[in-house]
Amino acid sequence: MTLQSFTPTTRPEQGLHRLAALRAHLLTEGLQGFIIPRADAHQGENVAPCDDRLAWLTGFTGSAGLCVVLPDIAGLFIDGRYRLQVRAQADMTAFTPVEFPDTAPGPWIATHLANGTVGFDPWLHTDAEIEAIKTALGRAKTGGAKTGGAKTGSAKTGSAVALRAVPNMVDAIWADRPAPPTARAFIHPDTLAGASAQTKRTDVATSLHQAGHKAAVLTLPDSICWLANIRGADIPRTPIVQSFAIVHDSGAVDLFADPAKFDDDLRAHLGPEVRIAPMDAFLPALAQLAAPVRVDRATAPVAVVQALRTAGISIAWGQDPCQVPKACKSAAELDGMRAAHLRDGAAMAEFLAWLDAQIPAIAAGATLTEIDVVRALEGFRQATGALHDLAFETICGAGPNGAIVHYRVTEATNRPLADGDVLLVDSGAQYRDGTTDITRTIAIGTPPDAARRAATRVLQGMIAISRLRWPDRRAVGTGLAGRDLDAIARMPLWLAGQDYDHGTGHGVGAFLSVHEGPQRLSRISEVPLEPGMILSNEPGYYREGAFGIRLENLVSVTPAPPVPDGDQARPMLAFETLTLAPLDRRLFLTDTLTRGDRDWLDDYHAEVFARLAPLVSDATRAWLIQACAPL
Amino acid sequence: MTLQSFTPTTRPEQGLHRLAALRAHLLTEGLQGFIIPRADAHQGENVAPCDDRLAWLTGFTGSAGLCVVLPDIAGLFIDGRYRLQVRAQADMTAFTPVEFPDTAPGPWIATHLANGTVGFDPWLHTDAEIEAIKTALGRAKTGGAKTGGAKTGSAKTGSAVALRAVPNMVDAIWADRPAPPTARAFIHPDTLAGASAQTKRTDVATSLHQAGHKAAVLTLPDSICWLANIRGADIPRTPIVQSFAIVHDSGAVDLFADPAKFDDDLRAHLGPEVRIAPMDAFLPALAQLAAPVRVDRATAPVAVVQALRTAGISIAWGQDPCQVPKACKSAAELDGMRAAHLRDGAAMAEFLAWLDAQIPAIAAGATLTEIDVVRALEGFRQATGALHDLAFETICGAGPNGAIVHYRVTEATNRPLADGDVLLVDSGAQYRDGTTDITRTIAIGTPPDAARRAATRVLQGMIAISRLRWPDRRAVGTGLAGRDLDAIARMPLWLAGQDYDHGTGHGVGAFLSVHEGPQRLSRISEVPLEPGMILSNEPGYYREGAFGIRLENLVSVTPAPPVPDGDQARPMLAFETLTLAPLDRRLFLTDTLTRGDRDWLDDYHAEVFARLAPLVSDATRAWLIQACAPL
Repeated sequence: MTLQSFTPTTRPEQGLHRLAALRAHLLTEGLQGFIIPRADAHQGENVAPCDDRLAWLTGFTGSAGLCVVLPDIAGLFIDGRYRLQVRAQADMTAFTPVEFPDTAPGPWIATHLANGTVGFDPWLHTDAEIEAIKTALGRAKTGGAKTGGAKTGSAKTGSAVALRAVPNMVDAIWADRPAPPTARAFIHPDTLAGASAQTKRTDVATSLHQAGHKAAVLTLPDSICWLANIRGADIPRTPIVQSFAIVHDSGAVDLFADPAKFDDDLRAHLGPEVRIAPMDAFLPALAQLAAPVRVDRATAPVAVVQALRTAGISIAWGQDPCQVPKACKSAAELDGMRAAHLRDGAAMAEFLAWLDAQIPAIAAGATLTEIDVVRALEGFRQATGALHDLAFETICGAGPNGAIVHYRVTEATNRPLADGDVLLVDSGAQYRDGTTDITRTIAIGTPPDAARRAATRVLQGMIAISRLRWPDRRAVGTGLAGRDLDAIARMPLWLAGQDYDHGTGHGVGAFLSVHEGPQRLSRISEVPLEPGMILSNEPGYYREGAFGIRLENLVSVTPAPPVPDGDQARPMLAFETLTLAPLDRRLFLTDTLTRGDRDWLDDYHAEVFARLAPLVSDATRAWLIQACAPL
Repeated sequence: MTLQSFTPTTRPEQGLHRLAALRAHLLTEGLQGFIIPRADAHQGENVAPCDDRLAWLTGFTGSAGLCVVLPDIAGLFIDGRYRLQVRAQADMTAFTPVEFPDTAPGPWIATHLANGTVGFDPWLHTDAEIEAIKTALGRAKTGGAKTGGAKTGSAKTGSAVALRAVPNMVDAIWADRPAPPTARAFIHPDTLAGASAQTKRTDVATSLHQAGHKAAVLTLPDSICWLANIRGADIPRTPIVQSFAIVHDSGAVDLFADPAKFDDDLRAHLGPEVRIAPMDAFLPALAQLAAPVRVDRATAPVAVVQALRTAGISIAWGQDPCQVPKACKSAAELDGMRAAHLRDGAAMAEFLAWLDAQIPAIAAGATLTEIDVVRALEGFRQATGALHDLAFETICGAGPNGAIVHYRVTEATNRPLADGDVLLVDSGAQYRDGTTDITRTIAIGTPPDAARRAATRVLQGMIAISRLRWPDRRAVGTGLAGRDLDAIARMPLWLAGQDYDHGTGHGVGAFLSVHEGPQRLSRISEVPLEPGMILSNEPGYYREGAFGIRLENLVSVTPAPPVPDGDQARPMLAFETLTLAPLDRRLFLTDTLTRGDRDWLDDYHAEVFARLAPLVSDATRAWLIQACAPL
């Protein structure tokens, strides 16, 4: 049984009549518009089928987006990654793509609607999102709206548009909406977590107590699963339990989730200080809290904020207290991540060796498609015997498909590999001891020189991050963040007039979400990097209609070992590379690499060989010798 | 006549009895403490002698600092640049150095004073500064102060310390305080400014009008001089007129300064829309303004804020409307800066050739001191016939003196150059057409290997900034700032466990302040870089007691020319290097440079030779051939 399916889950032609049905329903409810985000109530990247309203309505299945339905136009807000995909999946006569964040929903609504009420589901939006829209509409009212970037329609001044929290209008017309997930939760053992749930609860309670907060509201399932040392299967690819929680400054936790998901063993593991109640007890419980209550403005739904305000409970805006402790992995979690990467690296080596063996046949005209490649890779991971799930749907793009940053192959787009293609394969696995995320770009025959030049620059950027060390200024309160380091990965591309329109890296959980906060290697992240944080290191380059390059290793932040000339009084941080798999040397113009870069690559390949060789088949070991040879 | 003097202007032994006199006076005024900043009412880096209260009281003459005098302790807050200098200049039995910003004044006061009132002069502090201190004192009152970093004394909880605006307590005891400056202001011609003062006033008025502000208060003399196309001589090294101004949304300007500084020609140049009034008319004029009035929180004195609040006039916090237009130089200003750098580069070449000619004698035992070097350099600049003033006191440090980042040689510290020293010379000039700022580090004989290794890394960082190009994201509102690029200059040092404790670059004015805002190449700058902005590019490395390295060129931001592989739809920005003078090739381990770095250095030297050779003496031209030869 394979985990991945290649049947398109949506069809562009569904959109037109569903949109018409939604507009008809809005009329009966006295609304002129409605906002449909991709998000569920937990602001995660993956959603359960019952929450996939954006895909159901529009056909667009990307991991981020938002549709604003108005009487005359339906704007589909997508970011740079999905510019191409949206045109293939959504009916362009029904939906108008809007580039986000260049154009924000608020000014766009002000431009396209003069009067009326736009509804939103208060569970699916954060307070900050809704406030931003309200501010823009208020500004439009007074005639000062900047509507630059809106593509169609003329700017109407004097907008008198109101925003109103309402029941979900899509659910009202979605006849065959799936039921909510019911998967059993399960124990995440202390040996893998590195700290008991009781210790974690005590630490979080102490931090709340120090801040003078009586409780914190948790709305992110990965925070809750981290805190309670549990995992679940409610969402594809992310082993979380759909839940809300309240942590009290006593260390007690109220956990709101379907009680049927918790069996006796799990309840014993949670202990008496974790009280389980059904989801619908969450809002009433908020109304009973002692104040002030910490709420994370970046992730809490409007419904939570409204409930607290209605009950007159004072809100202390602040970060979810589990975010940073969760991000700073324990020694046991780091060990688990290393073990997972070793296992996954061996599967990757088998896969890459297999793929290389197909290349002569491809050159001779044999057919091997993207789907064949995805299936083969999944098979090698299944063969480890330890695969719990994939970490996400494999991105496997040959030739021009590689330029679609988050390309997801289906039977409709499936491309046979051709001689001279570059093939981008971005994949990951969930093992019980850790989560992996790796991208390799492989030369099928001899790719065009432009692709090799770009690939060499991407490699230089990836190595620059891999080799980096930077001053540890946490003690003086000025620790460096992703924003301070992001340019390092881009410089080789910048010098050639090139760049990539995504961050250099995202946070990664330990047998949790493959995209986790708060740490990022990105211009939008000002969170100081701390030892134990795990990030991806994945620069890329994409030429629309031609090829895509991306190279990705996971790294963890670690105190930097001393170097001969280093200042004694200047502690530094560095990255430890966790991912173990060869990089395709045929893709790079290695004579343009510096000595330092060549040394890094040779050292990396030597380590990959030493670690993986004992774990792979004889044939793959023979292949590894070539793949890991020094330049 | 030389511009620079080497007689120490302060003596450590003055401090003890002046401090006692101040404390006695505070007692009679009912104060327990008083804050003495380095700043004057205009928050500039240079101050007139009558405003140099910090140096008068403490002996410390650095360009930034603050003293907090309490009954039992007097904390002298200095940043990393002045850690060594403060110990040489101030009496360490009277004053306690405090590392800023690691320790801020507010928490420090809370730690060292339990009760009482601390006075401050409301003209010498910004609202933000005073609010930060008040917040820290308020927090201390409720028992939550963090006093980490304070070096002496135990944390006293329950602080009940009040802050009060009072007349200046230092002025009250400073018997022979100099008079305020009276220098004549003069015309800065439109041909050099590139835009008439009327055009500038109209542009600023338009921006105020668009923001809905009736007027803006200007407290920075360089903003006022830029706006009115005037210059002055009130402050050493910075050709500004001490003044305040109010710009109205009509384009009219009220200019507050000593009217005797403005002769008839200058008044005719200013025209009827610029009304001159004496300084003491400023506060009354504020009380008459139509609201809202824009005030820049980063630079406006508390006295301005108080006057507006007392008069009930609504304040719109916002940036000084001249800051960004001033920073983005006109084509005429860029031409002037290029001409100034060509002239200054020829003087630098004469100087460097002269210095090299002394090295054999030094090796043979002849005495050449830091002061001799400073005088010689000033002489070569005087010989251009165009020198208006220096841009700042020359920093000339041999051997261990080079490690004092802002070292200022006096007869007390003057060091003879020794064989094997590295000599750091950081200097600049004010010409009527532009301002220069250049640092060269010169090998006197053969410096130690550690110095050469560090110098090579500093060179690599400087070249990395020089060669950089980066995406021009201004159109989508996410233009890159100094913070996004600063790491590029540091990476070569970081990889060796080294760094420097100052920004990579500061803004530079056009025949104005050599340190101007808002642009910076620094982690603390989030101001997007725009074409025409001029910055220094000056990484360094300092080993206390051993040597200092710094290399500095000025650069201007410019649209990047296209490159062969560059993406068509991705406009980029780059730096044009303005400074023209050889870098000392003997200092660098050139075989560790990349091909790209070597090419940059060879190209730079070829341009330096081509541009300077026609302007220098025959002997210097012969020297230039060697100094600019390819690696």
